[in-house]
Amino acid sequence: MEDELRALQESIEGLKRSLPVSDHHDSISEMQQRVGRIMSLVKSSGGRRSKVKELSAEVVDSNPYSRLMALQRMGIVENYERIRNFSVAIVGIGGVGSVAAEMLTRCGIGRLLLYDYDTVELANMNRLFFRPDQVGMTKTDAAVQTLSDINPDVVLESYSLNITTVKGFDTFIESLKRRKPEEDGRSSGVDLVLSCVDNYEARMVVNQACNELNQTWMESGVSEDAVSGHIQLLVPGETACFACAPPLVVASGVDERTLKREGVCAASLPTTMGVVAGLLVQNALKYLLKFGQVSPYLGYNSLKDYFPTMEMKPNPQCSNSACLERQKEYIQAKPARDALAKAKLEAESSSQTECPLHMDNEWNISVVDDSEAETSNHSRKPDALPEGLVRELPNADKYQEPPVSGGISAINDDLEELQRQLDALNSA
Amino acid sequence: MEDELRALQESIEGLKRSLPVSDHHDSISEMQQRVGRIMSLVKSSGGRRSKVKELSAEVVDSNPYSRLMALQRMGIVENYERIRNFSVAIVGIGGVGSVAAEMLTRCGIGRLLLYDYDTVELANMNRLFFRPDQVGMTKTDAAVQTLSDINPDVVLESYSLNITTVKGFDTFIESLKRRKPEEDGRSSGVDLVLSCVDNYEARMVVNQACNELNQTWMESGVSEDAVSGHIQLLVPGETACFACAPPLVVASGVDERTLKREGVCAASLPTTMGVVAGLLVQNALKYLLKFGQVSPYLGYNSLKDYFPTMEMKPNPQCSNSACLERQKEYIQAKPARDALAKAKLEAESSSQTECPLHMDNEWNISVVDDSEAETSNHSRKPDALPEGLVRELPNADKYQEPPVSGGISAINDDLEELQRQLDALNSA
Repeated sequence: MEDELRALQESIEGLKRSLPVSDHHDSISEMQQRVGRIMSLVKSSGGRRSKVKELSAEVVDSNPYSRLMALQRMGIVENYERIRNFSVAIVGIGGVGSVAAEMLTRCGIGRLLLYDYDTVELANMNRLFFRPDQVGMTKTDAAVQTLSDINPDVVLESYSLNITTVKGFDTFIESLKRRKPEEDGRSSGVDLVLSCVDNYEARMVVNQACNELNQTWMESGVSEDAVSGHIQLLVPGETACFACAPPLVVASGVDERTLKREGVCAASLPTTMGVVAGLLVQNALKYLLKFGQVSPYLGYNSLKDYFPTMEMKPNPQCSNSACLERQKEYIQAKPARDALAKAKLEAESSSQTECPLHMDNEWNISVVDDSEAETSNHSRKPDALPEGLVRELPNADKYQEPPVSGGISAINDDLEELQRQLDALNSA
Repeated sequence: MEDELRALQESIEGLKRSLPVSDHHDSISEMQQRVGRIMSLVKSSGGRRSKVKELSAEVVDSNPYSRLMALQRMGIVENYERIRNFSVAIVGIGGVGSVAAEMLTRCGIGRLLLYDYDTVELANMNRLFFRPDQVGMTKTDAAVQTLSDINPDVVLESYSLNITTVKGFDTFIESLKRRKPEEDGRSSGVDLVLSCVDNYEARMVVNQACNELNQTWMESGVSEDAVSGHIQLLVPGETACFACAPPLVVASGVDERTLKREGVCAASLPTTMGVVAGLLVQNALKYLLKFGQVSPYLGYNSLKDYFPTMEMKPNPQCSNSACLERQKEYIQAKPARDALAKAKLEAESSSQTECPLHMDNEWNISVVDDSEAETSNHSRKPDALPEGLVRELPNADKYQEPPVSGGISAINDDLEELQRQLDALNSA
């Protein structure tokens, strides 16, 4: 639009020059002012921020990363800036995938690869992310449009294709493999694949690709009645793959498309999908940035706010041959894994030096030797209390002292006085 | 912008008329074409859908409510269309409140009241919803801009004010009270208040207003280290109010602003805030549309994916006098509540008629009397098996039959034969 406006400015300028001076001068300068105003309106509505070179932790309103870098100061993440080195692929840019992509974009992920073959419809407007003015665009293009405005630092790759076709699968796996020259030696060019698709066929395809590439991935799903969902971590060879314990529809070989009835659609809610996307990307951040516990499986039953968890070992009779290969490799690598874990443990225990846990001790808290403190306590005079404290009862030593002379007779006096009062009451 | 463009079109038209025919004709018609193209670009980029009169369950791509109305067909919600009758107030349009507002807008809520006094900053871009081009706008105005584009059916009210000031509180409570004429008799004009603020002072103000108006509300919060959060339901008189068990900072009367240090900000993540917003609005939908179990309290610990729940009764020594009044009313209303519950239970049990639970029985499943089935089983001949089944062992009755004649001698013959073979092997 800005190009059109600039061309219009030039046309008006040209017209002005070709007309005799003072002829129509007012109407032309009015037109020029109008175009100027439209130009500034266009510019202000498309105001994108410029790219940043380094993530700064500076606490100023203009720093889009200050609240993320604060995770380091709070001791949650050791090195947040590493996020810029990671590539994540998201398959399925629907109700879950689009929100997952936005979350990762706002977190400042390095590179996002987006896969979908669908276009935006008004029927998608009951979930977060897409806008009515994007209806008709491919979901990947619409996502790139929105995400690049939100964070120009993220490298976005858009693949509008169906991964369940032969050609689509080839492009899918080739794009996952593509990597920077310095990453040689790895079979995959991404650090994590997030599956956010809505059918089993596509899940089996993602499973196949990740088993072949030995690529860790996370799966997500939302039920047809919109009120429950789940996320799952899949590490080839180490955990169950999607084919290790396939859903009944997959195991029985039924074409799931034949199960859908004409004029009937699944329900969906922005809440359930937002929660599942949040749990998925949180798990992805924990996995990539190494904090907290990465969940192997987490369910979400929204009717009861119940969150089941479980773990699934790979199936030695899995129907997926690439899974069986990864299982074999995982078992063969056990001695090396154990040795590494042992070495790490030893290194950690030997690195525990004498320096204090918290270097900056702003409250001046210091640790005092217990035995010394006890000794000094004992040497203190028994009746010496800290300033401002008084004893409600005499201390134990006092009770063992012989009663002061006249003590007993004083008590007797009180009893005689009480007896007198009682007699007086009775006789009254 | 469209007004400016229309005025520009008229100026060009006027200029064309005032010039001699054929003079500069080409350059002017070129300018007109350019303006036409800019006009269509402006219109397409601001493409808003028109309002709908009734929520339709029709399954077509152009229906923004088809996936929500499907909740009825799935048996989750009895009457989804009721959502258009509800008014919800959201206090605090930050990382949680803005996403909650978007979710309710996409669900087609009737009316949304938005309260915040802050402006959008680049430092907010690590959470969902606001866009960099909105920097500098008030959060409520920016929210109305985005939300009205997403769903023009929702009535949006924007209050850019600080509810913790005397004037702000008055406007806050007056706006909550305002209601349609047909709603007379209620003290509040909204159905639910969602608190999404980031400080205790504002929470105490929402608490005060809701106790005064006898208004049910839900509270939400995210920890300063960005990795945990919670939601809570507060029903005046019935559950604990925010002052019944106040946080230490509130109870000790410290001004929490003095606790914040210069140059230090809280961490935040779009994931945690998205999950908390999702859980909050899901609970709100369950409360408003009467499905599932409304959670009294739900925590979210993202490091361990742990979701604690609890319930809190009101404190008879609460410092909030409006809370004490509501508690008294709640206790006094107990007999009426019990009678209503009893009547409802009786009405339900008497309405259980003879018609089947599922009217449409597409699988033709029918219930057969147990006793009859057993009788017919017994009358069946013992050796009659369903077609395709064979017995691997004779049935128990057969074992009790006397062995057939010659049975024992046949076994003896086999033993003699075996003995012969063994002898032959030994002698070999």
